[in-house]
Amino acid sequence: MSEEQPSAKKAKLEAKYELLYWPGMPGRGEFVRLALEAAGLPYKDTTNEEKDGITKLFAVIRDTDINDPPTLCPPILRVSTADASPLLICQTPNILLYLGDREGLAPGSTDKYLVHQHALTALDLTNEAHNTHHPIDVALFYEDQKPEAARAAAVFRAQRIPKFFGYFDRVLRHNKRVTPGAAEKPWGYVVGDKLTYADTTVWQMVDGVAFAFPERVQALRDGGGYADLFAFYDGLKSEAWLAEYLGSERRQKYSHGIFRHYEELDGKE
Amino acid sequence: MSEEQPSAKKAKLEAKYELLYWPGMPGRGEFVRLALEAAGLPYKDTTNEEKDGITKLFAVIRDTDINDPPTLCPPILRVSTADASPLLICQTPNILLYLGDREGLAPGSTDKYLVHQHALTALDLTNEAHNTHHPIDVALFYEDQKPEAARAAAVFRAQRIPKFFGYFDRVLRHNKRVTPGAAEKPWGYVVGDKLTYADTTVWQMVDGVAFAFPERVQALRDGGGYADLFAFYDGLKSEAWLAEYLGSERRQKYSHGIFRHYEELDGKE
Repeated sequence: MSEEQPSAKKAKLEAKYELLYWPGMPGRGEFVRLALEAAGLPYKDTTNEEKDGITKLFAVIRDTDINDPPTLCPPILRVSTADASPLLICQTPNILLYLGDREGLAPGSTDKYLVHQHALTALDLTNEAHNTHHPIDVALFYEDQKPEAARAAAVFRAQRIPKFFGYFDRVLRHNKRVTPGAAEKPWGYVVGDKLTYADTTVWQMVDGVAFAFPERVQALRDGGGYADLFAFYDGLKSEAWLAEYLGSERRQKYSHGIFRHYEELDGKE
Repeated sequence: MSEEQPSAKKAKLEAKYELLYWPGMPGRGEFVRLALEAAGLPYKDTTNEEKDGITKLFAVIRDTDINDPPTLCPPILRVSTADASPLLICQTPNILLYLGDREGLAPGSTDKYLVHQHALTALDLTNEAHNTHHPIDVALFYEDQKPEAARAAAVFRAQRIPKFFGYFDRVLRHNKRVTPGAAEKPWGYVVGDKLTYADTTVWQMVDGVAFAFPERVQALRDGGGYADLFAFYDGLKSEAWLAEYLGSERRQKYSHGIFRHYEELDGKE
């Protein structure tokens, strides 16, 4: 499907990491993809790369067999190990924790808990973004809960985005203050002076919220607040690895996942 | 407030761990309390033990100062460290991760990610339980979103409780299967053969859901399903440390927290 170089293809064949997630959307899988991309690791995105990849996902999340470790839902990271049985890791923040520990995406000091904390908080707002179009029932369509969605989205726009964006803006300013040399730079990372999965997770959260609520996020930008958060968002986006990834076919387009744009749910306020 | 022995009081004065959480309810703080209790650690539950403890909580979650690390919301664990500045750890699963790593509540092997995964999943259903009485706006009263709550609660009862209880039932059966000697015991832990924070978290989730939806959970019990989950729930409850804790004044009564009982939201189906 993708038109990568043979060397990249070979790396994928030997990839230690396989992501199992719904095809055709960034969704929760995107937080995992971004961490793998940030660490420069080859990985297989099975449902997007293989024609019948979805059957491999369903084989893992079937809910009747207890011979294999039960899994509730994707994203799932399958890790090849030296012995015969691969490791299955579920839960987005847990996959990030694993990659953080093993692939240099988190510090070894107690700051690793700060990284996890910020990722969890960004994922909380992500869940709330999902709740704006599915406030009543995750199994029903948006069209079956539109009046409730309109109420929930109004609250999300007016209160929740400013609360969380304001929080991460303060986090970035605090980190600038305590990280030597950071004050002189145009923008800084979320924790310390190295890229961690807190950065990729906060970035994707802002990107997703900006996709779903473009008018609202533009109004917040135009208002001049959250300067450190938007500087971080723009700055990280311009890093070579992320720019390359966003321009590649590996990046899925937003569609019917967590972050959805419904014009009637957006607004300046 | 509590009538503990002088020795217990002394241990609290020297406690390394201080929990900062809303007073007078189990809430999300309960997952932290149970982990500390399971590890047999003394801790200070500031807002419940000190008359003006709430001011100490507000001093930490104020949202204007970036001199200290910003915090979004409780629970917060304050950890005394050898040097002058204590560590502030936020986000329930992150606090559990920290305690798991340091206090013997998680294995050192890759099973530690399984422990975290199961705790995160139990906390997901906990969040969904909150959503049943606050589907539209966390800042409004339940009374301002009653029709929406009735719809959300019906879905939670019919679909979400069975989905998650069924998942944890399979997890317990799978663990029995792969843990040597576990099959002969009347009930088993969630991961391996030692108590972890996955056990305390799944237990509290079941306890909270059973408090909020007693008719529904009783109907599931009477139906004969989820046998491993209920055996685990009853078995852990009878362990000496948990029985002692539940009978003590340290255990808060359910009130207006995440887990609330509204008769009109409960039902057999």
